[in-house]
Amino acid sequence: MPANTIFQKIFYPRSVALIGISSRQNWTFLRAFFFGNFNGRLYPINPKVDHYLGLKFYPSVRDVPDEIDYAVILTPANSVPGVIEECIDKKISAVHIFSSGFSEHSPEGKKLEEELVRIAKGKIRIIGPNCMGVYCPESGLTYRSSFSPESGKLAFISQSGGFSIAFVLWAQERGIRFSKVVSYGNACDLNETDLIEYLGNDEKTGIIAAYIEGIKGGRRFLDVCRKVSMKKPLIIWKSGKTEDGARAIASHTGALTGSAEAWDAAMKQCGAICTDSFEDTAYTSLAFYFLPYPRGRRVGCIEMSGGASVVASDACSRAGLSMPPPSEGTAEKLRGIVAPVGTSVRNPIDLAASYLHPGVADRAIELLGRDKNMDSLIVEIPLRVIADVFFWQEEEAGTIFDAVVASCKKIKETKPTPIVIHPITSKTREAMYDDLVRHKFPVFPDEEVAVKALARMLRYKEWLKPNSKPQKKRSKN
Amino acid sequence: MPANTIFQKIFYPRSVALIGISSRQNWTFLRAFFFGNFNGRLYPINPKVDHYLGLKFYPSVRDVPDEIDYAVILTPANSVPGVIEECIDKKISAVHIFSSGFSEHSPEGKKLEEELVRIAKGKIRIIGPNCMGVYCPESGLTYRSSFSPESGKLAFISQSGGFSIAFVLWAQERGIRFSKVVSYGNACDLNETDLIEYLGNDEKTGIIAAYIEGIKGGRRFLDVCRKVSMKKPLIIWKSGKTEDGARAIASHTGALTGSAEAWDAAMKQCGAICTDSFEDTAYTSLAFYFLPYPRGRRVGCIEMSGGASVVASDACSRAGLSMPPPSEGTAEKLRGIVAPVGTSVRNPIDLAASYLHPGVADRAIELLGRDKNMDSLIVEIPLRVIADVFFWQEEEAGTIFDAVVASCKKIKETKPTPIVIHPITSKTREAMYDDLVRHKFPVFPDEEVAVKALARMLRYKEWLKPNSKPQKKRSKN
Repeated sequence: MPANTIFQKIFYPRSVALIGISSRQNWTFLRAFFFGNFNGRLYPINPKVDHYLGLKFYPSVRDVPDEIDYAVILTPANSVPGVIEECIDKKISAVHIFSSGFSEHSPEGKKLEEELVRIAKGKIRIIGPNCMGVYCPESGLTYRSSFSPESGKLAFISQSGGFSIAFVLWAQERGIRFSKVVSYGNACDLNETDLIEYLGNDEKTGIIAAYIEGIKGGRRFLDVCRKVSMKKPLIIWKSGKTEDGARAIASHTGALTGSAEAWDAAMKQCGAICTDSFEDTAYTSLAFYFLPYPRGRRVGCIEMSGGASVVASDACSRAGLSMPPPSEGTAEKLRGIVAPVGTSVRNPIDLAASYLHPGVADRAIELLGRDKNMDSLIVEIPLRVIADVFFWQEEEAGTIFDAVVASCKKIKETKPTPIVIHPITSKTREAMYDDLVRHKFPVFPDEEVAVKALARMLRYKEWLKPNSKPQKKRSKN
Repeated sequence: MPANTIFQKIFYPRSVALIGISSRQNWTFLRAFFFGNFNGRLYPINPKVDHYLGLKFYPSVRDVPDEIDYAVILTPANSVPGVIEECIDKKISAVHIFSSGFSEHSPEGKKLEEELVRIAKGKIRIIGPNCMGVYCPESGLTYRSSFSPESGKLAFISQSGGFSIAFVLWAQERGIRFSKVVSYGNACDLNETDLIEYLGNDEKTGIIAAYIEGIKGGRRFLDVCRKVSMKKPLIIWKSGKTEDGARAIASHTGALTGSAEAWDAAMKQCGAICTDSFEDTAYTSLAFYFLPYPRGRRVGCIEMSGGASVVASDACSRAGLSMPPPSEGTAEKLRGIVAPVGTSVRNPIDLAASYLHPGVADRAIELLGRDKNMDSLIVEIPLRVIADVFFWQEEEAGTIFDAVVASCKKIKETKPTPIVIHPITSKTREAMYDDLVRHKFPVFPDEEVAVKALARMLRYKEWLKPNSKPQKKRSKN
């Protein structure tokens, strides 16, 4: 069966068997199906249960009087080969093995996993074992009741189930929604390459992010990354680049790993965007999700703090971006609205306390945003200072905030405008923060993170140009 | 007048003049004095105001019928030289110039600043200009009404007023309290070296953190850093290491800057702890504030996610720390409490879903914490997953959380135990997060940040040993 047909059954199954639903941990799984509004048919399998949650249980998949597209296997490791054989008998095309106790566990587990692969070969495809499986809000397939039922354009694949959950929760609180998420564990059959290839062709997916511990089949992986990168941004966080990390991976998903340098060089050539931590991956995805591509390297920056201005300048320098002065016309107008001292109308524009006077920050944003010298705009919104200075003047605080957001909205359609809110938690700022998320602004914890994200978008765009044009020419020849 | 006497007057003034209180921005300043519980005498100076907030105003400092220890100058830049002369006439020992419009502003401003220095020389000492001044909760001196009136052992000096505010707010929400904070701006007279030297001798200060844009007088600065580092940790975030950063500094505080490499090498020799961002500085301070020093490089790690385990291993490798296996006795006991598959009792201990069973995570923490093979412990508390899995079972969630915290409390007295909560905001987890802060745990957003902080503490401790012993020997000779 071609991979696309298989993945169609995995992501959009008309019927799913949940094999081995038994303990409380497994009920969480079942409950998630209801939260996800799964609209196919559900067949729980357990010889010891008759009915639960209004569902009839079957002793085996063989007893189900219906075709089954996809099965989730939750039974203990040593029973899995037998279960797989039943699934093959039932002509199920693909299974997700949730169960652990395979190559990540022991030499015996490794043998058991090899046995699975042998049994399945040519007959059934496997996701896992040792993983959470699939979240596809469009079909309602999910493994966490806290995952949003809304769809979006980001896909995430993860060799760690824990990270897949943390990533979805982090992202959805910031307004990101997902097309498909796969926690794929030991990858004994369908692996990162198969998933990335499918998602590269998937129309519902606009951006792919991945957490990968070890690669199976390096050459094909690189080819696929290159092909996919020509179509959409592919963000890859590869862990286990150190010896100790590799050792931890061996007992996590049993994967083999390569050298850090070789990896980075190969990825760069493929056009993939390499990240190196959870936050790095998350913020990079956030930028690609919400921002248009910058036209060039010139960043305009509106700050309230002089210190933040310095940090923004350092960050741009390091990332290979520039902060040119605004055009003379813009500078002239800026001088007309800010206090004559304590501020700077060179770029970064340091508004200092003038930021808090109505009609200053919002106008400065529009002036700099419309300046032909700028390709993107970074705007600091000092939520905490606003909350602090206007503690009992909510209306005044709201007026300034609303005006700033309105200006950013005007600019962001043409120029990428990341928002920076310095990493200070505060209960008073929550409503304003939520407002920014609602207006689909990506919010970053500092200038460094925002600049890094912009630089990555630019680098990808630049890689895309020479790499996509010859491609087209060749096809004409 | 010796520097110590000057600083005594600056941080603990018996009487303060607020010169030029006039606009609303300045009232914020005055209000802060009331929030800070300032217990000295206050003399607002403004010829146009008679009374406000119950305080009598004076037309000039000369008219105040009392000695004045310290003055805050808020008048426009070009009036400041005249005001300084009046302060000298009044025999005021030190002033803080809040006003901007000096060397950071223009060539004329630079001349004005030079004039100030000339007038003041030998007669009065200056903090600033172009800065927020002093926060000393012990005396009640403050510049933000949101700053805590409680004292603590961290001192922070900052060339940026905005960062000084952001830093205090960030830190105090995490349980840190301050001995002294100084936003010192252009540093035309008293500078970073003077401040660090004073704080090095200050008994109320246990740790010093600094945000510095440019150094005045390199040789003495290095000598002071070395001397102070022998007494207490000195954490320095130096910005403006790039060309663009240096340009932004010129228009922020007018300071000159040096090369990045020279700086890092010099700092390392001095024993100072170099950081390179707001968060880096903040989390490093958090670690030094709350954690005992690790005895050695061996880190034990308790995780719920296998992915996080891999990241922790990578981070330790990079930071030069190790993750040795637990002793056989510990491993044996761990195997007795965790599920046989899907987990790992090698270090990092990956508890997977076993984490959520009562009596597992808390016992694992105590076992690993008491293991003689470990010098410190990193504990993941998966607050979000706890909140998610036990959404309607608050009691059960609370039981698991409380047991984990109780175990961490037992261990942390003897072994540094940073807590890691992955960067996922969630309203449901707030009460638990607040609990951790109340119990004085430093909470980090990921393993990388926690490990980096531990490694810095260890490096500082190691630097201290060879550098302090010969010192003592010499004094005996």
